[in-house]
Amino acid sequence: MQMILKIKTPDQKGLIAEITRVIFEFNLNILKNDEFVDKENNLFFMRSEMEGDCSIKSLQKAIRALLSPQANIEVFEAKRKKIVILCTKENHCLGDLLIRYDSGELNADILAVVSNYTLLEPLCQKFNLPFICIPSENLTREEHETKVLKVLERFPSDYIVLAKYMRILSPNFVKRFEGKIINIHHSFLPAFIGANPYKQAYERGVKIIGATAHFVNNALDEGPIIYQDITKVNHAMSWKDMQKSGRDVEKIVLAKALNLALEEKIFVYNNKTIVF
Amino acid sequence: MQMILKIKTPDQKGLIAEITRVIFEFNLNILKNDEFVDKENNLFFMRSEMEGDCSIKSLQKAIRALLSPQANIEVFEAKRKKIVILCTKENHCLGDLLIRYDSGELNADILAVVSNYTLLEPLCQKFNLPFICIPSENLTREEHETKVLKVLERFPSDYIVLAKYMRILSPNFVKRFEGKIINIHHSFLPAFIGANPYKQAYERGVKIIGATAHFVNNALDEGPIIYQDITKVNHAMSWKDMQKSGRDVEKIVLAKALNLALEEKIFVYNNKTIVF
Amino acid sequence: MQMILKIKTPDQKGLIAEITRVIFEFNLNILKNDEFVDKENNLFFMRSEMEGDCSIKSLQKAIRALLSPQANIEVFEAKRKKIVILCTKENHCLGDLLIRYDSGELNADILAVVSNYTLLEPLCQKFNLPFICIPSENLTREEHETKVLKVLERFPSDYIVLAKYMRILSPNFVKRFEGKIINIHHSFLPAFIGANPYKQAYERGVKIIGATAHFVNNALDEGPIIYQDITKVNHAMSWKDMQKSGRDVEKIVLAKALNLALEEKIFVYNNKTIVF
Amino acid sequence: MQMILKIKTPDQKGLIAEITRVIFEFNLNILKNDEFVDKENNLFFMRSEMEGDCSIKSLQKAIRALLSPQANIEVFEAKRKKIVILCTKENHCLGDLLIRYDSGELNADILAVVSNYTLLEPLCQKFNLPFICIPSENLTREEHETKVLKVLERFPSDYIVLAKYMRILSPNFVKRFEGKIINIHHSFLPAFIGANPYKQAYERGVKIIGATAHFVNNALDEGPIIYQDITKVNHAMSWKDMQKSGRDVEKIVLAKALNLALEEKIFVYNNKTIVF
Repeated sequence: MQMILKIKTPDQKGLIAEITRVIFEFNLNILKNDEFVDKENNLFFMRSEMEGDCSIKSLQKAIRALLSPQANIEVFEAKRKKIVILCTKENHCLGDLLIRYDSGELNADILAVVSNYTLLEPLCQKFNLPFICIPSENLTREEHETKVLKVLERFPSDYIVLAKYMRILSPNFVKRFEGKIINIHHSFLPAFIGANPYKQAYERGVKIIGATAHFVNNALDEGPIIYQDITKVNHAMSWKDMQKSGRDVEKIVLAKALNLALEEKIFVYNNKTIVF
Repeated sequence: MQMILKIKTPDQKGLIAEITRVIFEFNLNILKNDEFVDKENNLFFMRSEMEGDCSIKSLQKAIRALLSPQANIEVFEAKRKKIVILCTKENHCLGDLLIRYDSGELNADILAVVSNYTLLEPLCQKFNLPFICIPSENLTREEHETKVLKVLERFPSDYIVLAKYMRILSPNFVKRFEGKIINIHHSFLPAFIGANPYKQAYERGVKIIGATAHFVNNALDEGPIIYQDITKVNHAMSWKDMQKSGRDVEKIVLAKALNLALEEKIFVYNNKTIVF
Repeated sequence: MQMILKIKTPDQKGLIAEITRVIFEFNLNILKNDEFVDKENNLFFMRSEMEGDCSIKSLQKAIRALLSPQANIEVFEAKRKKIVILCTKENHCLGDLLIRYDSGELNADILAVVSNYTLLEPLCQKFNLPFICIPSENLTREEHETKVLKVLERFPSDYIVLAKYMRILSPNFVKRFEGKIINIHHSFLPAFIGANPYKQAYERGVKIIGATAHFVNNALDEGPIIYQDITKVNHAMSWKDMQKSGRDVEKIVLAKALNLALEEKIFVYNNKTIVF
Repeated sequence: MQMILKIKTPDQKGLIAEITRVIFEFNLNILKNDEFVDKENNLFFMRSEMEGDCSIKSLQKAIRALLSPQANIEVFEAKRKKIVILCTKENHCLGDLLIRYDSGELNADILAVVSNYTLLEPLCQKFNLPFICIPSENLTREEHETKVLKVLERFPSDYIVLAKYMRILSPNFVKRFEGKIINIHHSFLPAFIGANPYKQAYERGVKIIGATAHFVNNALDEGPIIYQDITKVNHAMSWKDMQKSGRDVEKIVLAKALNLALEEKIFVYNNKTIVF
């Protein structure tokens, strides 16, 4: 059995020694171990990939006994996760995930795809995935989200992936899935927050555009950033050209960020991420 | 009507003036114009995107009359191209093209997919594309290629895209489609020519890996390079990790190179490319 | 003699033909030619590097006769430019330019270095450059700028390079040198406008930082962008670490942008740049 | 006192626990800790930055007692290193290090600069550094190296930095400074080994060029790679243009690699590096 241990706790001398001693006493082999000390906030972060056989509950209890009451400790079996994808009309992020899913590269099961339009239904059907269209016309934001929530309840998942889902989620919705919603924003945040970042980038005359995968929080495009990448642009490109080129960045950035989440390599903290 | 003019000719004073005068006399509007002078070899390259109505034959004749007999002149209507894809077992390059095809982003019709294995047949069927499997077992290279050639004759295309087709093509085959076969090599050429470049990269301990799209010529992995890109790697990555990360580069590099070819933006010359 | 021609004019059919015909009639050889049509605004941009002997005045007149009265036409001999550098305390951008100057790589004469601190005086003295310190203490912005202006009048230059000059220039000052002041901003604009962008980047938790070279206009950090580049950062880096890493980007970006300006490859237009 | 501990040892369960327990018993605070397990070769690597007061000898002895006899253990005080720079005619790598030295950014003392030409003497004199010219004319490789060695003996250093030193070192010379000589090669190794890589790159028609910093071993350009970076090129660039652009990459890559060495963040192993 492979397990993952994630700890966030006030820093103090001897922490690594004590924690790894317990791991050793449980007869576990550490496959990969990462630590980080945030000196500014005196916090210690640790993530261990371990192999062996033990009761996860007992291990957690033993580590809990070592650490400060403020410590945040997670131990779990490393296993295939479940995701639900939300999208709107663009197929590149969804399609990229589907192709990874089809080859087995994606280390997750896609339970369902939810969209406010029907456009991507045929694509999902090709891959035999439940596609649920929830049009937003004539609905308040609340009414629409209530319907989306019902679908998400039918398909309980580890992560909700916004693969170019062009609607803003309400604080209530977001709070319910804190740290579980991954969005791809089509700009190099914090540049060009909000609508049509490619048009904004074109108008500002930037020479580089980018994409940002982040966890969603209540402030639009201001959640903790997981991964970013960029591509060069020039004066000869229209904003449509930038959009076309940017889509290649978007899909790779989203896939990389999702993969980090699926491997439980991310700590969220102070609206930032620690990525091991 | 949109037309493209491509000229390669010995350089001399006044070339641009004369050529663009003819274009003007044919009442064409130049949408985009690019020139390049290779001083070392005294060669002039020009590519014009033009709009208007005229006889392509007459235009070609008029330009021919201006230039040296060694000049290479192509004029044609800018129209949607046809491609055939060859692949083996990996789905990422093929899948990426299929998703672009599905959204209409790919400016070409995929006529057929040919493979030496059946593994990718279900994927092609999802997109209703003819999939022709030509296994190579118990066949000489020549026999196998003869069968592939027959399929290519059934589906005459503008470009043949090797989307991780893991067989080496014979000189005869290549000669037949000179400048028409685009391959993606999974290394940053000329580093790691040949088999399993990711393993080679891992063993050499490089800190960056890449992918190279190139036209195929007779020397293995030595054809004219169209586009390259890279990604950073580190000591903690196995060669399988590098391969996984490299695949994201491969598919984007292949798509960008194919797009340049479809838009007729490439000149091949001296085993190099000029990309406008 | 090598000359450069730069034209910005309303687009119309036949422009390239007419302009290059005049160039041919003046018996000039075109070494490099670039055009761009901004369809949105129906504007045509052209830059030619030409070789030959002719009266620049006559050439300008002949081209002027062809074009719309709104056309902007510049013709000049390609020759070594003069620059003045303004800096404050950091030595990396200034030092980088000095090393390029020392080897002859920088295609410009550095006439003088002006600073509001004395810290970089010894560095400039090593390279025998006039160093003028104008402290800002006890001076209003206007008084300080008046003194700086006097120095700039003593050393008339083609470009003023802000090599980490940490003072904001007044609209009056900027207007006087429109399109002549190149600044390096230590962020990937438009992200992190204003003070201490590395601290802002650290606090936002971005995964990429950058630098932006731009012409200075009246709005802080909002002038036309010439060149940008980036580097990856991670959670383990403090803002000081980001600053250290970012400095390497800053100096290269500034040098590249300055080089583009020295080679007269930039058009400024609509608060954006066209870079050939 | 800040100390660094570097361990390379056959992997086994409980290593981290035991080592960090000893560190704790010596009352040291771990500031930064990194581990890596090479599963293929069953090797464990660990690097700790620690703070506290203790006898380094006793600490080393205590850790030695824990580990296999094959273990490689280094403990030392983190202190400012000494370097000697070898160069030939190009000033960009040397100049970059001098500017970093001048600001105090470079965490090392430059003891001397050795060159086979006098060209860079004035630059070194500006910074008051001993410059020793050892011309190679009329000398065998052995005679020349004997003279260089004498200088290196006069200036005992931690690292010898080849800042574009264009001579090949003999196996004898290299063996004497194993793991202590850092070279910058002006290509993206293993592409373009040997002379004039920019010309090779130009002739091959690559779209990306790079630079590689590596430790020197007996095989030309085949030592363990520390750091690499790249920049895009295109058909319009001559090999001289590529060289000019490449120099910006070279100097940054060399400085980054040197910095990693100065901070003792590199393990060399199997002709590869582990960089924490």
